[in-house]
Amino acid sequence: MAVFEIIHQDSDSAARQGVLKTAHGEIETPVFMPIGTAGAVKGITPEQLKETGAEIILANTYHLMLRPGIETIEKLGGLHKFMSWDNPILTDSGGYQVFSLSSLTKIDDDGVEFASHIDGAKIYLNAEIATKIQNRMGIDIAMCFDECTPFGIETPKLEKAVERTIRWAGRAKKAHANNNQLLFAIVQGGINPELRAYCATELVKTGFDGYAIGGLSVGEGHDDMIKTVTHTTQFLPPEKPRYLMGVGTPADIIAAVRAGIDMFDCVLPTRNGRNAFAFTEKGPLRLRNNAHINDTNPIEADCDCYCCRNFSRGTLRHFFNSGEMLGPILTSIHNLTFYQKLMRKIRQTLKKGEFTNWTKRIHY
Amino acid sequence: MAVFEIIHQDSDSAARQGVLKTAHGEIETPVFMPIGTAGAVKGITPEQLKETGAEIILANTYHLMLRPGIETIEKLGGLHKFMSWDNPILTDSGGYQVFSLSSLTKIDDDGVEFASHIDGAKIYLNAEIATKIQNRMGIDIAMCFDECTPFGIETPKLEKAVERTIRWAGRAKKAHANNNQLLFAIVQGGINPELRAYCATELVKTGFDGYAIGGLSVGEGHDDMIKTVTHTTQFLPPEKPRYLMGVGTPADIIAAVRAGIDMFDCVLPTRNGRNAFAFTEKGPLRLRNNAHINDTNPIEADCDCYCCRNFSRGTLRHFFNSGEMLGPILTSIHNLTFYQKLMRKIRQTLKKGEFTNWTKRIHY
Repeated sequence: MAVFEIIHQDSDSAARQGVLKTAHGEIETPVFMPIGTAGAVKGITPEQLKETGAEIILANTYHLMLRPGIETIEKLGGLHKFMSWDNPILTDSGGYQVFSLSSLTKIDDDGVEFASHIDGAKIYLNAEIATKIQNRMGIDIAMCFDECTPFGIETPKLEKAVERTIRWAGRAKKAHANNNQLLFAIVQGGINPELRAYCATELVKTGFDGYAIGGLSVGEGHDDMIKTVTHTTQFLPPEKPRYLMGVGTPADIIAAVRAGIDMFDCVLPTRNGRNAFAFTEKGPLRLRNNAHINDTNPIEADCDCYCCRNFSRGTLRHFFNSGEMLGPILTSIHNLTFYQKLMRKIRQTLKKGEFTNWTKRIHY
Repeated sequence: MAVFEIIHQDSDSAARQGVLKTAHGEIETPVFMPIGTAGAVKGITPEQLKETGAEIILANTYHLMLRPGIETIEKLGGLHKFMSWDNPILTDSGGYQVFSLSSLTKIDDDGVEFASHIDGAKIYLNAEIATKIQNRMGIDIAMCFDECTPFGIETPKLEKAVERTIRWAGRAKKAHANNNQLLFAIVQGGINPELRAYCATELVKTGFDGYAIGGLSVGEGHDDMIKTVTHTTQFLPPEKPRYLMGVGTPADIIAAVRAGIDMFDCVLPTRNGRNAFAFTEKGPLRLRNNAHINDTNPIEADCDCYCCRNFSRGTLRHFFNSGEMLGPILTSIHNLTFYQKLMRKIRQTLKKGEFTNWTKRIHY
């Protein structure tokens, strides 16, 4: 049984609509994964999350390994039971956080030693350990440990990171010991076309259940990001799922779907929701603005999310102004629903062969 | 039509089980009202609140008049629509907060001038204004503006506060202009039996839809509180609902029901929930304790709340430890459900004539 099946290939672009099979159910792609960093999507219960339309979520290996730790997650029945989410879960490898959040104390070809951002404890992570932790969490899709580089890094360092990412992916595949779990490799290489091509080609030689494009949405801008994605997908096997990590705005997602991407994750709907920024089809609303004081309208009139069915912009503004938790909670619910509706629309238009025409009519 | 009907009068105590009729529906008493201070029960959506079994909530006039202000609440359709709660709402009069939260700048027999705790703005409140604001919010039960005294105040000051509370209640009744809204008076008098008797008697002469006992749970302790309640209820008409303001622990509530109280409000289930303190029939759980790290049990095994159906103590501990909003949210849901189950049990045992026997078997 193929893990991934393409149901509709768009004739006007590289976009495709498919089905990804995991141990906790099938999901339709293109798909957006909300982020449950430390075992929770901030402020949102799993019940509320399902109501937004979410079918798969992402959790962060780095955060969970530091707190509560893999032993505790195992003792509490694995990550699904731990966070009360019985649909698919993808975990990242920890690479991104190790290189962005923690103080690195040592990096070599074997792995990385870093100081926890919580208590400064020295922790060692490498391809085998990151894979093993993900195996033990019992999640559905594991990611290979990679070296995630910042934007603008010098070419020799980028080359070294690409080499390590390739070797670490090979080691992750060897270490991977959970047949219920897919293993995706991560293509690195910044916005350097040769390095992206090389990294993708080498990873494909090793062979994985899916391929992610990492190291983007780190400051390169929309155009360079989409250019890099479009270039990189050429070197990835069409029959495997493709995941663009950490992306992005609605416009980023639509452009990346055109370039052949199937999976996305991003903090925008929740982080922006917590900051009173609501996504709408007519552009963003800043809910703290005085313009909303007496506004009886919901965030979006035709939105059927719990927030829009029950609360006016005026009340949401009051909640943010008063520091009431319901402001962030309700706006996150709306934004997550907005993203899921966007993905549903993408899938629907792909199924009907109307995707490209639809993208011309919208103004995200 | 009587506003309040006593269905079962306990034969072993002053406890009674009744029905209170409001413009937004009937509620069975004894009843517990969760607190939606500024238009929201902190972190809990109205949908989640209903699932806890809540049938009536309390909102704070003081907080709402300062922010967003009565004009905005009116423009947004009244308090029910504003906070998306279509069941009964009781608002307090603002008296308690004026005397405890704000800087009083002037108090005389007419009313009180105070500085808002938010921005220091000078605001004037008296019996007529507090009543009018509650009328305009469109809520179901309004409270008379009272002078709420701190514990241990000198007798002459207490006497003066009682006199003002009586006169202000008379003025509130005259000012009250919303036929869909019940008006309750508040008995003050600290723990002074003569003043409580006097205050109650005078208020009853004026005549109100219900009577609250205010100025308790301010430091006098359980025994003095229950003694005062037991004493005061003698001077209240049995056929009218009685509301003990700001009370309390499960033990306080059970004792006050025995003394003939029908209505309660308290921040304990939500404030304690936000602080990782969970109520159980076997006593409190401190969810941050290391003992819960790998604990797969829910807060209470036989509790059917959303929290207990889905989350282990181990996960809840992790949420509190990691600063995840779901910790406070889920524990508040459990605690609110615990309080509603307690009230349901009280009503059920009263209906069956088993209340006193039941109170002997429990250990809250």
